[in-house]
Amino acid sequence: MAVKALTESEIRDRIGIINGSRTDGWALVNAKLQRTFQFQDFVTAWGFMAQAAIVAEKLDHHPEWFNVYRTVRVDLTTHDAGGISVRDFELAAAMNLIAEPLLREES
Amino acid sequence: MAVKALTESEIRDRIGIINGSRTDGWALVNAKLQRTFQFQDFVTAWGFMAQAAIVAEKLDHHPEWFNVYRTVRVDLTTHDAGGISVRDFELAAAMNLIAEPLLREES
Repeated sequence: MAVKALTESEIRDRIGIINGSRTDGWALVNAKLQRTFQFQDFVTAWGFMAQAAIVAEKLDHHPEWFNVYRTVRVDLTTHDAGGISVRDFELAAAMNLIAEPLLREES
Repeated sequence: MAVKALTESEIRDRIGIINGSRTDGWALVNAKLQRTFQFQDFVTAWGFMAQAAIVAEKLDHHPEWFNVYRTVRVDLTTHDAGGISVRDFELAAAMNLIAEPLLREES
C-alpha cells in the first residue's frame, strides 16, 4: 500500500501544526520538508543525528541530511510517493522531539 | 600555529597517494576534497559515519557531509587555512580506513 503525496495546501497546514509558534521550524523548500538545526557544538549535533538515525531506520524512512560542525540541515521527501507524505511529517515530528532538549542546552 | 593551505599541485599529488589504484576515491571538487561512499544500506552508511564522527571530533577537524540512505558524500576543507590542508588528508585517510571493511561487505 503506497503512501500518497500530500497537496501543497495539506503540507502548509501540517507545517503550521508541527511548528506551532516556532519561526525557525520546518518549511517547504524545493518541494522538500526542510529544517536546519543549530546545536551547541559537533558532539551535540551528532547526538541528535545518532538518535534520529535510529528512529529513521525503525520507521524505514530516511532523511537526506547535511552536517557541518554544529549545523544539521534535514530535507524530507517520500520517493515512493513522489512528494511529501505523512511519513515525512512523522519523521519531522520525531526529530523535533529529539532536538528539543538538545537545543535547550544552548540557552 | 595555523595550518597552511596546500597548493593545487600538492593536493593532486596527495590525492594520487591516498587513492592508490582506486578510481572512485577522493577528488578535488569545488576547491574541496570530496569522496562519495556507497555502502550496502543505511545501517552500514551510518556505521561509517558514527566511527568517522568520533575520529573527526578527536582530531578537532570536522567534515561537511551529506547522507541519504546508503550514500555518504564527504567534503573536506580547512576553514582556518582558507583551503585544503594536511588536516583534510589526515581525516580523509582515516575515513578510508574506516570505510574499507564496510565497503568490502558489499561485494
